Amino acid sequence: MTDLAAVKAALKTQAVETPSWAYGNSGTRFKVFAQEGVPRTPQEKLDDAAQVHAVTGVAPTVALHIPWDKVEDYSALAKHAEDRGVRLGAINSNTFQDDAYRLGSICHPDAAVRRKAVDHLLECIDIMDATGSADLKLWFADGTNYPGQDDIRERQDRLAEGLAEVYARLGDGQRMLLEYKLFEPAFYTTDVPDWGTAYAHCLKLGDKAQVVVDTGHHAPGTNIEFIVATLLREGKLGAFDFNSRFYADDDLMVGSADPFQLFRIMYEVVRGGGFTSEVAFMLDQCHNIEAKIPAIIRSVMNVQEATAKSLLVDRSALAAAQASGDVLEANAVLMDAYNSDVRPLLREVREEMGLDPDPMGAYRRSGWAEKIVAERVGGEQAGWGA
Amino acid sequence: MTDLAAVKAALKTQAVETPSWAYGNSGTRFKVFAQEGVPRTPQEKLDDAAQVHAVTGVAPTVALHIPWDKVEDYSALAKHAEDRGVRLGAINSNTFQDDAYRLGSICHPDAAVRRKAVDHLLECIDIMDATGSADLKLWFADGTNYPGQDDIRERQDRLAEGLAEVYARLGDGQRMLLEYKLFEPAFYTTDVPDWGTAYAHCLKLGDKAQVVVDTGHHAPGTNIEFIVATLLREGKLGAFDFNSRFYADDDLMVGSADPFQLFRIMYEVVRGGGFTSEVAFMLDQCHNIEAKIPAIIRSVMNVQEATAKSLLVDRSALAAAQASGDVLEANAVLMDAYNSDVRPLLREVREEMGLDPDPMGAYRRSGWAEKIVAERVGGEQAGWGA
Amino acid sequence: MTDLAAVKAALKTQAVETPSWAYGNSGTRFKVFAQEGVPRTPQEKLDDAAQVHAVTGVAPTVALHIPWDKVEDYSALAKHAEDRGVRLGAINSNTFQDDAYRLGSICHPDAAVRRKAVDHLLECIDIMDATGSADLKLWFADGTNYPGQDDIRERQDRLAEGLAEVYARLGDGQRMLLEYKLFEPAFYTTDVPDWGTAYAHCLKLGDKAQVVVDTGHHAPGTNIEFIVATLLREGKLGAFDFNSRFYADDDLMVGSADPFQLFRIMYEVVRGGGFTSEVAFMLDQCHNIEAKIPAIIRSVMNVQEATAKSLLVDRSALAAAQASGDVLEANAVLMDAYNSDVRPLLREVREEMGLDPDPMGAYRRSGWAEKIVAERVGGEQAGWGA
Amino acid sequence: MTDLAAVKAALKTQAVETPSWAYGNSGTRFKVFAQEGVPRTPQEKLDDAAQVHAVTGVAPTVALHIPWDKVEDYSALAKHAEDRGVRLGAINSNTFQDDAYRLGSICHPDAAVRRKAVDHLLECIDIMDATGSADLKLWFADGTNYPGQDDIRERQDRLAEGLAEVYARLGDGQRMLLEYKLFEPAFYTTDVPDWGTAYAHCLKLGDKAQVVVDTGHHAPGTNIEFIVATLLREGKLGAFDFNSRFYADDDLMVGSADPFQLFRIMYEVVRGGGFTSEVAFMLDQCHNIEAKIPAIIRSVMNVQEATAKSLLVDRSALAAAQASGDVLEANAVLMDAYNSDVRPLLREVREEMGLDPDPMGAYRRSGWAEKIVAERVGGEQAGWGA
Repeated sequence: MTDLAAVKAALKTQAVETPSWAYGNSGTRFKVFAQEGVPRTPQEKLDDAAQVHAVTGVAPTVALHIPWDKVEDYSALAKHAEDRGVRLGAINSNTFQDDAYRLGSICHPDAAVRRKAVDHLLECIDIMDATGSADLKLWFADGTNYPGQDDIRERQDRLAEGLAEVYARLGDGQRMLLEYKLFEPAFYTTDVPDWGTAYAHCLKLGDKAQVVVDTGHHAPGTNIEFIVATLLREGKLGAFDFNSRFYADDDLMVGSADPFQLFRIMYEVVRGGGFTSEVAFMLDQCHNIEAKIPAIIRSVMNVQEATAKSLLVDRSALAAAQASGDVLEANAVLMDAYNSDVRPLLREVREEMGLDPDPMGAYRRSGWAEKIVAERVGGEQAGWGA
Repeated sequence: MTDLAAVKAALKTQAVETPSWAYGNSGTRFKVFAQEGVPRTPQEKLDDAAQVHAVTGVAPTVALHIPWDKVEDYSALAKHAEDRGVRLGAINSNTFQDDAYRLGSICHPDAAVRRKAVDHLLECIDIMDATGSADLKLWFADGTNYPGQDDIRERQDRLAEGLAEVYARLGDGQRMLLEYKLFEPAFYTTDVPDWGTAYAHCLKLGDKAQVVVDTGHHAPGTNIEFIVATLLREGKLGAFDFNSRFYADDDLMVGSADPFQLFRIMYEVVRGGGFTSEVAFMLDQCHNIEAKIPAIIRSVMNVQEATAKSLLVDRSALAAAQASGDVLEANAVLMDAYNSDVRPLLREVREEMGLDPDPMGAYRRSGWAEKIVAERVGGEQAGWGA
Repeated sequence: MTDLAAVKAALKTQAVETPSWAYGNSGTRFKVFAQEGVPRTPQEKLDDAAQVHAVTGVAPTVALHIPWDKVEDYSALAKHAEDRGVRLGAINSNTFQDDAYRLGSICHPDAAVRRKAVDHLLECIDIMDATGSADLKLWFADGTNYPGQDDIRERQDRLAEGLAEVYARLGDGQRMLLEYKLFEPAFYTTDVPDWGTAYAHCLKLGDKAQVVVDTGHHAPGTNIEFIVATLLREGKLGAFDFNSRFYADDDLMVGSADPFQLFRIMYEVVRGGGFTSEVAFMLDQCHNIEAKIPAIIRSVMNVQEATAKSLLVDRSALAAAQASGDVLEANAVLMDAYNSDVRPLLREVREEMGLDPDPMGAYRRSGWAEKIVAERVGGEQAGWGA
Repeated sequence: MTDLAAVKAALKTQAVETPSWAYGNSGTRFKVFAQEGVPRTPQEKLDDAAQVHAVTGVAPTVALHIPWDKVEDYSALAKHAEDRGVRLGAINSNTFQDDAYRLGSICHPDAAVRRKAVDHLLECIDIMDATGSADLKLWFADGTNYPGQDDIRERQDRLAEGLAEVYARLGDGQRMLLEYKLFEPAFYTTDVPDWGTAYAHCLKLGDKAQVVVDTGHHAPGTNIEFIVATLLREGKLGAFDFNSRFYADDDLMVGSADPFQLFRIMYEVVRGGGFTSEVAFMLDQCHNIEAKIPAIIRSVMNVQEATAKSLLVDRSALAAAQASGDVLEANAVLMDAYNSDVRPLLREVREEMGLDPDPMGAYRRSGWAEKIVAERVGGEQAGWGA
């Protein structure tokens, strides 16, 4: 029997961080389709993020991406956020959009390029000091396209050396979150291709280094919830980058491609104590063809629904069935929670939080979409690279 | 026993079409790294392509991409090519880089967008009339990102209707080559995801409609040479788009990721009569981080080497081993050809053709690379979207 | 708005065929774990299948596998089934478990082996005449393990020739259902690897030849519902073999690995008219570690739930959102149906059919499981190969 | 410039361990095709293995599988091997073919089953003491088929506990080699699915615990040579299980599906010092349809050819090209070695070792194949499970 009050209480404390870049334009290598009303400044991205939090109540922080969100005065930016009811979240570094990084950044064969990359990461920690952000999120586009292009092992040595320097700069209460990715934009090797590589580096670095699981960064057939369970058992799960995929790193709305997988992941989070720990839940998505703010609201709701279902699993019934080796019953207990329609429960939770039970409708009725289209005219729209 | 003279004769007649766009800049959704000396006009692309043909002797034609290679006077463009020893090849349409195409082109729910797309394809045939190109190559980025986004079946109806109108416009000696692709830039469905779909449409259209096999457009584990054998058996293999991949549509140099697969594909081409038929051999690659012209020369050489090996297969020994059910011997006959070093043979072929036996060295010594860096200053570099 | 009465009526007419072999033991190449109470004869398999139909009301027919279900008197077998409330369904051929088939059956290089295989298929049609079965289901294990082992194209010629002879033997009202499979037990090529190959053969054979979609027989990332939509549009979808998979052809309970995919497939079936047509819905699963009869009941229920959800899709709202290009709304309409809990609706349907609303409980309470363990002692348990 | 004498010297010291079970019958879940002349006893497997070593000169040891190769007197078995010119190699445990292991062995929810499994592993170390084998190779079929079936994390706890007990029993000079596998025979989770999991366990156990890389046990698209480079860098690569695959764990002859991948793997071995270290090179294959002894000879030769090519890489030219960021030149240096025909070199090596330069021919001419067919009549053929 699950305790509904406890489930509701847990859902009310949920926090999903939204990424500033998802409010801007994005696309594929073939085309970026521009949308009207898209933010032109970091401040406008925060304004949009505040709308998401206003209607969902569980998206209180916004991840920044440097240099896309570079400003003169980070305290003012933090103030801008707080005035709108949100806070600044993780700082995401960018070591892939400078011409210097054609053959890598922190793993580049040329020491000067590595220096440039490490300096950028150190600058990101300076920004964290200014914004009060706790997390430095590192994703490296580093890798090679052709066998022989560079020495796989030396690149690991360079990576270890660069990470160590950055790690040493971390202050109290600051963490380094290391993301892995199977491929893209590098097509033969990536320098942190899997959780094992990220884990091995974090282990050597120390307690402040943790692994990020981006749900779109795995080979076909990879059991992501197994990785989540394992990293939690090892005390090394730092954060999620949520999105969903059918093929590669499609960066679709989380929960839109395989909602059952998202439920299984959230179940391992709940079961492993990750829901109440330091694990950060972030979105990292690209809304190439759909309206951006509503897509982010929907994504936050998808995470909520998967979380609600995972909290509804009858853990003692499950444990009993597992202990007795009753395969079908154990599976049935899990599926009972998944097959539940948790939307009424979430509507209640929202009402108890003083929110509109229907976030999508609330946003639509707010007039924000029309307002930004009307007002955000001129200037340069934000986008990847902007 | 293979007849070496016949092998050499076949190799001398080989023709690999290079794509105008591969001479320009390209990249991933994360970054396009610009290179120096990249062409700024269709004419300069042809100049570069002529260098590839000059040193390899087997790259006599250049595929154009409309509108990237749009010019006022196509006869003058054809003349420009011929003056440099090459000819214009297939016309490639583009129905993915206009804002109108956010939800598709020929399959778009809005009839006005479909009209625009079909008109573009008809315009491409006008250009074929002007250039004397025989082939219209169609790749559609059409598809959907989310389940429910559009009706899968209606999109097929729209596709069939659009293709029929374009097909009807083809003149004598003109073909429509239909390409399929599993995913990207659409992430849930693509409207021509596999050879079966392309084949079914081509079958209904008629003899002038043929299927294009892009070697990077398949699901993991797909046996491409089986598809090649099947399409040749059905008389429906129109062309190849060669490139290679480790993960998705990586568009790396053909033969660089799995040279054994390329050999197996070329063997099925030879065995199925495709080498001496109307099957067009085209490259479709992106040289994101490596020098473009040398990468294309290397790619052409990789195709040559795979072809040479496939021609060296002792077909009668193979047939005998296959007929007797001798698994290991049949495999060994094939592997004997693959394990051969055909580079000396190709050096001989080149010398007999009056070429430098070492195309990479010949290009390096030509000074062309330095020349274009020095001369191509100012103007806008060509690139995807340019 | 969906018409609930119509949805219920449709659900009451649903028919899922269960396979005789799923009631027997099965396993992996590593181990077959034997279970107690497993049937020892075709008759006992029918007895078990009758239990599934008794509690679900929608599993009225049982597929046979020849020679595993070979009997002297098929009329008696049919009578045995009818006495228990079920009927004999499709006849499944077996051309993979005789030592003669080491290098293939209908595609074998040796004409004598091909003769043996075709004779077996003709015998299966004789059995259809005796049982009144309408469908001959063909799955070929044919293929090769090593490049060069046999000639890909000649094997297609042999396949076409063999199928033509079998097709010619079909009587009125009889169909040939051709299944495709990417790999296993052959590891380099299979002779019918994808829907395109099956479709091309069926097209040449004629109207009585139709394609079978086994949901576990695709490459990673394949969009199965697209294939379903396409085959329905072409009038060539003959049947499903339902099961589910995480990696390869895992043959797990349908709906257990990706219930959202099953829903999307069933939606395309409903949308394409397949639910009310001649498309046959069959299970083809292996219950290696779980209790077999309950696993089959659960599988039938999973198909029912996916069907119910697909019938609940608000088709007019969906069409409107699609036509207007509202990506998020169109996706939301589809997800609304998927996120519904249809279990109460199905309980009502069962009650209206005079059944226990809880098929799993009804089976448990029936005592059948204990009865067969007690009674089925001695003799040889049925299993793959038995 | 590579030093040919050094290359030859290295090739002469190569040692590839062949597995006793590959000499016996094997198959897929669909069928085991029996072959004539297959060994009936562990002694006869050693006799066959001795033939492989006799003609290749580089297959001096034979891996045993317990209980398949259980004998009364292991000293006598070791003597039998030595009399024929080979030695006993790694001991492979089997915790998957007892009915008790339906839901796992060392990770089973029932402590009694775990006890049984651990006891078996301890017994294997007893056997190592008797045979003088240095390596205990552990592959666990443990896992689950359905979400919820068992608790992922508790299974890790059980695994850690069991491994620790076994590890404690290891004597001086004995190692525990832990293998990972993505899937099969478990289809939802496996308890050691990837190198990261194996590595994390080995790290905690200590220096005697090392990871085994089976080349067929990865998700599609996994870069195996990256894992090899990483494990060597971490000092945790214990052994290879060589075989090759197109789709899943196909267990085909190593080098037959992707010889370029095998070359890249061997290059990382050479580059990382693994070729001259304690890394064990073992075959683990199934020759389901081809003649077994010749298939193993061919496999050993494939490993030799890949090794020879990897030794021929011009490491200083490669390093120079890599350091200068010359992508195409670095790739070309690697490909030059790969594109070489090393068969003449290996023929020389064999002649210098006093062997026939043509191992396949030598075996054929030896008459062994005919001899075993004539003599091995009666008794029970060895096979998986035998």
